[in-house]
Amino acid sequence: MEPNVKLKKPEGTAKPAATWIWYPGDFEIRLLEKISVKRRMRGVMYPTTWRIDRHYSNVRFHYTYDLPEAETVRITAEGMFSLHLDGRDNIRTNDSIVTLPAGRHDLAICVYNDTEAPALFIEGENIRTDSSWKVTSYQSDFVNAGAWTFHSADNRPSQFRLALEPQEPVAREIQDGHELLDFGRETFGFLRFHGMKGEGKVQIYYGESMAEALSTEFSVLTDRFEAAAGAAYAEEGVYTLGESRAFRYVWIHAEPGVTWERVSMLYEYVPLDYRSSFQCSDPQLNEIYDMSLYTLHLNTREFFIDGIKRDRWVWSGDAYQSFLMNYYSFFDLDVTRRTLAALRGKDPLTMHINTILDYSFYWFISLYDYYLYTGDFGFVQQYYDRAVSLMEFCLKQRNEEGLVEGRPQDWVFVDWADLDNSGAVSTEQILLARSLEAMSLFASLLGDEAASASYTALAEEIKETTLRLFWDEEEGGLLHHRVDGETKPTLTKHAGMFAMTFGYLSPEQRESVIRNVLLNPDVPRIRTPYMRFHELAVLCESGEHDFVRKEILSYWGGMIKLGATSFWEEYDPSLADDAHYGMYGMPFGKSLCHAWGASPVYLIGKYFLGVTPSEPGYGKYRIEPNLGGLTQMKGTVPIGEGEVTVEMDLASIRVKTTSGTGVLAFVSSSEPSCNNGAVTAVGKNRYELIVEAGKTYTVAYAAVQKIEASVKG
Amino acid sequence: MEPNVKLKKPEGTAKPAATWIWYPGDFEIRLLEKISVKRRMRGVMYPTTWRIDRHYSNVRFHYTYDLPEAETVRITAEGMFSLHLDGRDNIRTNDSIVTLPAGRHDLAICVYNDTEAPALFIEGENIRTDSSWKVTSYQSDFVNAGAWTFHSADNRPSQFRLALEPQEPVAREIQDGHELLDFGRETFGFLRFHGMKGEGKVQIYYGESMAEALSTEFSVLTDRFEAAAGAAYAEEGVYTLGESRAFRYVWIHAEPGVTWERVSMLYEYVPLDYRSSFQCSDPQLNEIYDMSLYTLHLNTREFFIDGIKRDRWVWSGDAYQSFLMNYYSFFDLDVTRRTLAALRGKDPLTMHINTILDYSFYWFISLYDYYLYTGDFGFVQQYYDRAVSLMEFCLKQRNEEGLVEGRPQDWVFVDWADLDNSGAVSTEQILLARSLEAMSLFASLLGDEAASASYTALAEEIKETTLRLFWDEEEGGLLHHRVDGETKPTLTKHAGMFAMTFGYLSPEQRESVIRNVLLNPDVPRIRTPYMRFHELAVLCESGEHDFVRKEILSYWGGMIKLGATSFWEEYDPSLADDAHYGMYGMPFGKSLCHAWGASPVYLIGKYFLGVTPSEPGYGKYRIEPNLGGLTQMKGTVPIGEGEVTVEMDLASIRVKTTSGTGVLAFVSSSEPSCNNGAVTAVGKNRYELIVEAGKTYTVAYAAVQKIEASVKG
Repeated sequence: MEPNVKLKKPEGTAKPAATWIWYPGDFEIRLLEKISVKRRMRGVMYPTTWRIDRHYSNVRFHYTYDLPEAETVRITAEGMFSLHLDGRDNIRTNDSIVTLPAGRHDLAICVYNDTEAPALFIEGENIRTDSSWKVTSYQSDFVNAGAWTFHSADNRPSQFRLALEPQEPVAREIQDGHELLDFGRETFGFLRFHGMKGEGKVQIYYGESMAEALSTEFSVLTDRFEAAAGAAYAEEGVYTLGESRAFRYVWIHAEPGVTWERVSMLYEYVPLDYRSSFQCSDPQLNEIYDMSLYTLHLNTREFFIDGIKRDRWVWSGDAYQSFLMNYYSFFDLDVTRRTLAALRGKDPLTMHINTILDYSFYWFISLYDYYLYTGDFGFVQQYYDRAVSLMEFCLKQRNEEGLVEGRPQDWVFVDWADLDNSGAVSTEQILLARSLEAMSLFASLLGDEAASASYTALAEEIKETTLRLFWDEEEGGLLHHRVDGETKPTLTKHAGMFAMTFGYLSPEQRESVIRNVLLNPDVPRIRTPYMRFHELAVLCESGEHDFVRKEILSYWGGMIKLGATSFWEEYDPSLADDAHYGMYGMPFGKSLCHAWGASPVYLIGKYFLGVTPSEPGYGKYRIEPNLGGLTQMKGTVPIGEGEVTVEMDLASIRVKTTSGTGVLAFVSSSEPSCNNGAVTAVGKNRYELIVEAGKTYTVAYAAVQKIEASVKG
Repeated sequence: MEPNVKLKKPEGTAKPAATWIWYPGDFEIRLLEKISVKRRMRGVMYPTTWRIDRHYSNVRFHYTYDLPEAETVRITAEGMFSLHLDGRDNIRTNDSIVTLPAGRHDLAICVYNDTEAPALFIEGENIRTDSSWKVTSYQSDFVNAGAWTFHSADNRPSQFRLALEPQEPVAREIQDGHELLDFGRETFGFLRFHGMKGEGKVQIYYGESMAEALSTEFSVLTDRFEAAAGAAYAEEGVYTLGESRAFRYVWIHAEPGVTWERVSMLYEYVPLDYRSSFQCSDPQLNEIYDMSLYTLHLNTREFFIDGIKRDRWVWSGDAYQSFLMNYYSFFDLDVTRRTLAALRGKDPLTMHINTILDYSFYWFISLYDYYLYTGDFGFVQQYYDRAVSLMEFCLKQRNEEGLVEGRPQDWVFVDWADLDNSGAVSTEQILLARSLEAMSLFASLLGDEAASASYTALAEEIKETTLRLFWDEEEGGLLHHRVDGETKPTLTKHAGMFAMTFGYLSPEQRESVIRNVLLNPDVPRIRTPYMRFHELAVLCESGEHDFVRKEILSYWGGMIKLGATSFWEEYDPSLADDAHYGMYGMPFGKSLCHAWGASPVYLIGKYFLGVTPSEPGYGKYRIEPNLGGLTQMKGTVPIGEGEVTVEMDLASIRVKTTSGTGVLAFVSSSEPSCNNGAVTAVGKNRYELIVEAGKTYTVAYAAVQKIEASVKG
């Protein structure tokens, strides 16, 4: 019931449209709450094994206006609301159309909602909700409201859903009397029954592999319904199942009385621009790149999740890699911000993010990367207080030597590997140091130089201690952990990789880690794409592109040879047949579409096409293309709003950019030339060229033949 | 849909019935969330002005059983659930009937509910949910489940509602053409329209006073509905309004087309035993006692609230007094426990309870009182960790002198009075010292002697500092506050009252506070029943019963003379007519039914009938009856499960008890005698008699004439 009042429409160069606002983070935290219980094991809920945070149910929005004349506004809220003016809290209204008096007034609107995040939408000629409004959770906080893209009263934040698109199976056959559908490749969505009739149960077995769909005993995802009940829910003859699932195959067992015309699905996805591209002389690498993009896209949802079948959870360490891949592909910042906000969640901090020590650190580093790739400090600022408190929480866990250790209740993960993570683990120290550097930068940008200096001093201290206590001259690398003041002799790749990535090693140490650790077959090899991400990245950082390309072809190409249509959680070439699908003690426990399987997107964009920001937000950047053994490649990398296109073969490099200023850097065995700018020699066959937006640069050069990486032993 | 399975019924001396369980405190916290938004200002929501805490939406229950044979159990949950055994979390079920295997097994049941507190009810022959089950919020906590009186699957915690009982108006008249109903006295419930017909709006004005109901502009509570819509919701011809309200009068304005047969109400209340009684030679005091009981009952609801019209909120300082009154009347521990649990709420502690510094302290003291009056240490133990963290939070606010101060965001309340509460307020130090003593006792009972000693040392230090810095020899009392190291000359009654109550003063100091502060007309008098509670209590502690009786007759009797049917939030005899109803800048802003108005229940039970526990749980207790100027009185006080009945006149005392061992103490100007035991002289005309349960003791004695309290001047 709403009075029939015509609101005055804005004229001329309009104020920005009104938008839904909420307590910052609460939209994301509520959305994560819903997503955190979506995982199913054969139809049964499997919620996350950490505290699910909750939005504030009771908040108050504030806005001060000053208007020459009274203004009528329309108020829509998600939840019960009441409005009062100028602190006169005994005089309230909950009318949806309100005329606000002229002059300067303080507007306060309480909103209560115990199911969805309280949200507010006010539209008037001048008075319109946006993120400049303040909001309090009644804790002496008074912060800018959160907002996103909900720009009309009807477009309610609580109703946010991903996009949908019909898809048809590519093949249909009968197996043991039951319909088996193949949707052609890994996909995600709601199964639909067209023209279903009759009575009886319908049982569905989903499979990421055909073997899984055909395993009525062990397929991870299943659905079951009564045909008549389903038919009753049908719209225009189509019954759409209530929950979306990950699958390529479905095997449908129905009781005899049940029939249908056909089965299709509604693909559920985030509409994303494929802003990157890569094409080279090796068709298999092209296929790997495209399949990586698709793998990443499927896992880019309400949040960056780890895997679409299992566990559909939001993990900080997994998201850290997805963020980076995303900067080299979709450059979608909405999912990034949602994920960062939701992962941090609410206080009190009693456990680490996802209960994992390293995963708290990845959150800081991800926030740093967000700033580096986007230049958007506003978002960082909004979450700075939560970053400070998370860091305080982490720093409490340092031992007498100043090294961070896991508490009994903490999971010190590092990697799926046979690691003893007791005591102080070197990798954790390096992640902490990097987190402190990020905090130092944020504090400095906020003008808090004292805090910044304090974070820097701590970072330096931890780096120094770590190199002093963990570096082993004989092994030529960083040892894994230190228990009760004694560094154990275990040598692993992890700490060395991260120390290299973050620039904590001297040139000699870097060289030693490459030769004596990363390329040393006696050091336990890394089996997860999760850590292969870092391993291959640092190898590229050290110029081992050719080695990395071969690894990509062998590892990711190996999955394709086994029929993968998206990349897996883990791949062990030594396994046979369906054994590939097993994990966690379940015959089909492995996720065959795992975000961290998509790292070629990142490796190729960053190290082959070679685009990296030199300052936050890509105002300046480097383009350091490297064929890595290919004879030709061409590709695009998004740089914020703009993009960089690189085309390269053994004799020419062509570069075009649409924003900012780039430096093209390359190696040439002969003096290069350029059609459109002056190439500068920087020594050792290295050359650089300043690249301005909007021009096309074509460089004639001569590729240097790369010598195979030498292996220790 | 549930399989038709017959559960084996328990035989013989049955295990206790299954009961609903939840994360401890979450039932109460969720209930408080709902109650915290019940307040209305003319139909508009006025939520509490502090953070509303929320239940965990995702918890996991655990139970280890060992059974010789398999057992079939029925599972009911509030929320989605999934069960797994022995940590095998990939094998789950959500069937409501499950057969659990024989042997020793660990049962884990995840329950998720984002609206109501997740709760679980499992019934089998041996396996039944109760508070011995463990529950975790996935924060490395593993605590005993919360439970109460929900002993059947259908009796769901989320559906908890107070009792209802039809009530009819005692008078009906037409005022300005509209029906005005009088329900005879202050009441609370849902208005009901019988046989309502026609179309048009119905507008209701509620009034605690007739003047309020007749003020269409300023009545605080209103309701409005469309008659046709209301009629559509009618059951058996009766339309019951959706929300319960506080009122005595209702004035009903309806548009011409609307008619009804009659209007009644559904009284909404907690069913309570009136376990105390009091009758004496003064009928007005009897009336005051009974009206106090009724006032307390109306405010004893889901929680102890402050006032039923306004603000229907749960305040720790108000509840502190209600708890004490309750021990002398209903002895209802359910409401007490609910209130204590809900007030403490959840972490993080960023603000004090109700945002008020003193109100955090009252929570500790209330918990202490709970233990003293009930002896139930189990409840204290369940909340001990939350007490520890609340104390840590409070102790952070000490200044360099070790005195607690309010932060800018804190409300340092003390009382509704013209007080400057800047700096360190003496009353707050005394409340903190008492809170620390409570913590010391709890720690000691838990066997943590180190923590206990530390709390005691802090309490002693704060007491010593407070007496040193605030005691003024010239004024003969405690000064009010100290700013920047300088004690200000303001003398108030508050600190002295609390210091006396908690026994922090020497006999000379006590005497001085009585004469020079409490009975000194130059010290600002206390206007709120809230602080009159403490003032009159300490006067009784000092033997000023006669003075207190007269004060009760004048103050509470004064309200009755003005037509009160329940006691008010504040009473100022100097006001005229309807001005009594105003407060907070509103003509009818005063609450005419306020819990803290009921303190005669406490004063009479504790100081006239004179019953107090000498050890936790009333195993031992004192009975120190005092006529305080009356010629005769008779009454009952509950002592846990039992009760004490006292009858006294100027020449005889009769005592009967049903549990524990009491000491009857009294003053007699001549040697007393007893029919049933040996009276012991303890000096200065004082005598004592051991009183065993089940016997009736009649003592012949001679009352001592009390000399009027002398007033300083």
